[in-house]
Amino acid sequence: MQGLMQDWPLLCHRIIDHAAIQHGNREVVSRSVEGPIHRTTYAEVRTRALKVAQRLQQEGIKEGDRVGTLAWNTWRHLESWYGITGVGAVYHTVNPRLFAEQIIYIVNHAEDKLMFLDLTFVPLMEKLQAELKTVEKYVIFTDAAHMPQTALKNAVPYEEWLNEADGDFEWVTVDENAACGMCYTSGTTGNPKGVVYSHRSNVIHSMSAIAPDAFDLSVRDSIMPVVPFFHANGWSIAFSAPMSGCKLVLPGMKLDGESIYNLLEGEKVTMTAAVPTIWLMLLAHMETNNLKLSTLRRVLIGGSACPPAMIEKFEEVYGVDVAHAWGMTEMSPIGSVCSIKPDYGTFSKKDVLAVKAKQGSSPFGVEMKIVDDSDKDLPWDGKTFGRLKVRGVAVAKGYFKEEGGKVLDKDGYFDTGDVATIDPFGTMQITDRSKDVIKSGGEWISSIDLENLAVGHPKVAEAAVIGVVHPKWDERPLLIIVPKAGENPTKEEILGYMDGKIAKWWMPDDVTFVPEIPHTATGKILKTALRDQFKDYTLPTATAAE
Amino acid sequence: MQGLMQDWPLLCHRIIDHAAIQHGNREVVSRSVEGPIHRTTYAEVRTRALKVAQRLQQEGIKEGDRVGTLAWNTWRHLESWYGITGVGAVYHTVNPRLFAEQIIYIVNHAEDKLMFLDLTFVPLMEKLQAELKTVEKYVIFTDAAHMPQTALKNAVPYEEWLNEADGDFEWVTVDENAACGMCYTSGTTGNPKGVVYSHRSNVIHSMSAIAPDAFDLSVRDSIMPVVPFFHANGWSIAFSAPMSGCKLVLPGMKLDGESIYNLLEGEKVTMTAAVPTIWLMLLAHMETNNLKLSTLRRVLIGGSACPPAMIEKFEEVYGVDVAHAWGMTEMSPIGSVCSIKPDYGTFSKKDVLAVKAKQGSSPFGVEMKIVDDSDKDLPWDGKTFGRLKVRGVAVAKGYFKEEGGKVLDKDGYFDTGDVATIDPFGTMQITDRSKDVIKSGGEWISSIDLENLAVGHPKVAEAAVIGVVHPKWDERPLLIIVPKAGENPTKEEILGYMDGKIAKWWMPDDVTFVPEIPHTATGKILKTALRDQFKDYTLPTATAAE
Ligand SMILES: Nc1ncnc2c1ncn2[C@@H]1O[C@H](COP(=O)(O)O)[C@@H](O)[C@H]1O
Repeated sequence: MQGLMQDWPLLCHRIIDHAAIQHGNREVVSRSVEGPIHRTTYAEVRTRALKVAQRLQQEGIKEGDRVGTLAWNTWRHLESWYGITGVGAVYHTVNPRLFAEQIIYIVNHAEDKLMFLDLTFVPLMEKLQAELKTVEKYVIFTDAAHMPQTALKNAVPYEEWLNEADGDFEWVTVDENAACGMCYTSGTTGNPKGVVYSHRSNVIHSMSAIAPDAFDLSVRDSIMPVVPFFHANGWSIAFSAPMSGCKLVLPGMKLDGESIYNLLEGEKVTMTAAVPTIWLMLLAHMETNNLKLSTLRRVLIGGSACPPAMIEKFEEVYGVDVAHAWGMTEMSPIGSVCSIKPDYGTFSKKDVLAVKAKQGSSPFGVEMKIVDDSDKDLPWDGKTFGRLKVRGVAVAKGYFKEEGGKVLDKDGYFDTGDVATIDPFGTMQITDRSKDVIKSGGEWISSIDLENLAVGHPKVAEAAVIGVVHPKWDERPLLIIVPKAGENPTKEEILGYMDGKIAKWWMPDDVTFVPEIPHTATGKILKTALRDQFKDYTLPTATAAE
Repeated sequence: MQGLMQDWPLLCHRIIDHAAIQHGNREVVSRSVEGPIHRTTYAEVRTRALKVAQRLQQEGIKEGDRVGTLAWNTWRHLESWYGITGVGAVYHTVNPRLFAEQIIYIVNHAEDKLMFLDLTFVPLMEKLQAELKTVEKYVIFTDAAHMPQTALKNAVPYEEWLNEADGDFEWVTVDENAACGMCYTSGTTGNPKGVVYSHRSNVIHSMSAIAPDAFDLSVRDSIMPVVPFFHANGWSIAFSAPMSGCKLVLPGMKLDGESIYNLLEGEKVTMTAAVPTIWLMLLAHMETNNLKLSTLRRVLIGGSACPPAMIEKFEEVYGVDVAHAWGMTEMSPIGSVCSIKPDYGTFSKKDVLAVKAKQGSSPFGVEMKIVDDSDKDLPWDGKTFGRLKVRGVAVAKGYFKEEGGKVLDKDGYFDTGDVATIDPFGTMQITDRSKDVIKSGGEWISSIDLENLAVGHPKVAEAAVIGVVHPKWDERPLLIIVPKAGENPTKEEILGYMDGKIAKWWMPDDVTFVPEIPHTATGKILKTALRDQFKDYTLPTATAAE
């Protein structure tokens, strides 16, 4: 017996329709790539997105075709997403921080037919275009007045291209399981692999993202996604913000502390989201200039582990609630958000901070478990480490063109490649990437825990821990430190600071100081490069053991 | 091109699975029908729901079979819903306040095979059972110790019946569009018609219900649905509460002011939901006894228009935020919730109250419009009245066994039977049922507006306005008033109070006082009965006009 409810497919265009009808006057404010602040509304974004869809159709873009975007967070990038999905095509966000060969690889692999790009990336694409086999046209996110001289194939300025449409267009209706978006994972080894979002997964994911224990987005909020749209589906904010009807503030290409601070204050931002590195820059800017935050109430931090010291600073010094989140490109991307459950009872500020340093629990729609190497379930005791596996309504079941083969286990779980503990109340904490965990005498040591601890030292700017071969223990931790400008910490100072705060056998066997640590295109520490660099390193304890 | 996201059907059992895994210790507290307060948890509810499903399967209940429930809000009723949907069957909530013939009609029409019922309803069902053609077994929500002597067919106490299951059972997986629940609308004319919910509609509806601008449910809340599960899908709280992981407080059969007050305070309730009549009783109890509310932060009021005086009292006297909501059985049921949009700008307390008296705007998943009698769209100017039509993911497309025929217009919209205005910011206000609107000289007068105004008078307990035939104007408003106990208001006092607060031509032509006003089974004023009662009423203005 079937239900008798309406057939109302979950399509992305319904989100911008809803925003335009119910929240049509709400502002979308961007720092344009050209410079000035630009203001528009959801109603206007929808009108222009319809024109994008119409123009794409005129260009021959059909259902399922991939359209690349290489752009910062601005209203034009937002419009292009809705225009692309609204003609039944697939937005493919290209991360400009990838190596040139990777960009070439993914654009060819995705077979992007047309590409939207910001002014910033014209020189880059001019260099690469000869190798891009499928791109027929480049639409530059600017107007005729700012259009550069360019050798890009069929290059046109977006505004003039858009103006050729009369906007008399109806969204193309596709199956809700049809592809609508694509984002390649920045794997540290091998070629990037394409995650393919469906209309359904994006819509349902956004519904769960706006909930009080996730983003907590209401119509009275003003959200600024500093996380770029090209990073892990833009954390879904291009969908969840209009769905909730809140004001949307887009920072364009200026992600430095001062620019971000000015938008936070100037646009009365109440909620923002980005990786820890961004917040380091903001916090440094505010400290140096003795600034306060007057409207921000909540900051969503994810992408890599948020150091407890950062949580403490936001909460204690700036009165901003930190929501530590975990996710991945393959999860659309939210996997968990940390919200303090009543199970913890009443407890001290310090205890709250310890819980907030965890990555949180999964919202409805995500199932998670931790397992050992033989795939046996591990207990949720907050201590046992295991491989973190997930299942859910917006979790990948495979990659584009079946790259990477079958990725689900027999129960349909996806292996995240992360190692985690889950406490008795369901709060998960990432302890490592499974590739980065340090295996010392058969036991696991969390590199993230050690890094979080080390960056708490006032003289440390950044810290990375890798396992280095050890004759007796197989592997032992080496702590690699970038000192703060003008500081000269010693090994003894750092180890002395860490001593007593972790189990004795977790203490790094050595500390080394470097001017810089390599990062991936999405801002994570590039451990493969570090392991390479230190592959012949001899620990002082190694000689002693021999 | 299809998306590459997991196939994760939206099934009701996933909600209680999520609650049991992520919020397993959260309490479900009920006032039992036997008397004492009963405490359990989501984990335990799930364990027992699995047993319900297993036992139903043993009883021969199959996918799509209807199982009746005639019960108050308690943990057992909650378990039974998840057990029924978990075996692929359909819960059919029977409203005990229906007339006997209506109960017989709907149980036969739904073809309920088995029936769960509370002790309270044993005598009623004993009287009706001879006429119920399909019910094979009655399971009484109690234990052996409280089991009454009964002539009900195959009657068994629930606890002992449940104990025969070992709980070694897996949820039956059905298509997400399969039926899972059923609720008959309490139409004021004709036979009740069955609305059939699907797993998908219930799950998506709950996702939108927990959002900040709807119920705003977080894991730290404690919600008490005073609205019974048998009224309009229980406003979805049996699903949305476990989905959010909040504490659930179920009031059983005692809905009087004192009992409700004691649970609100005793269980630290933060959020509650019911029709205005319930709140009249609570407010009266608190006033008489000079009581305060210490934890309640939000009350959801719907089912019929919430008088502004009630909103003011909750907000000003008790510091509780009122969320005025509108919906219907056919909408699962949420159609709109009133949340103050920033569009209104900064304005006085009085202005805020005027907005809160409106029924609000539609969440994502609901589309609405107002049209005239020839189905032409009417403007959203906050003044023009029109028939309110809706479309959406959890809106009915028809009734069980095609009763009532085709109910959607050519664009797929469902006519709500309500008349409303929508303001420029998308906030909708119900002005009437289309059957109740008063047509005076070709213009419409809102009976709800007049009623809301009249109940603001300190001597008025309840007010109803109906149209009475008038030789010149076709129809003119008659105001029918139930005075507060011990009060004797006069016509002049009431009209004097209303004068100047509405357009002159809206003023009732007469006022009459009655000891009681008839209500429907869901607590709405039964206007058909009033129209019947006053059909020969002669207005003083009628003779004057002749
Ligand atoms: N907040 C409200 N204000 C006015 N009428 C309401 C409200 N909520 C529900 N109703 C009425 O109740 C009807 C639905 O009845 P039911 O299906 O029994 O819940 C709607 O069509 C409205 O006429």
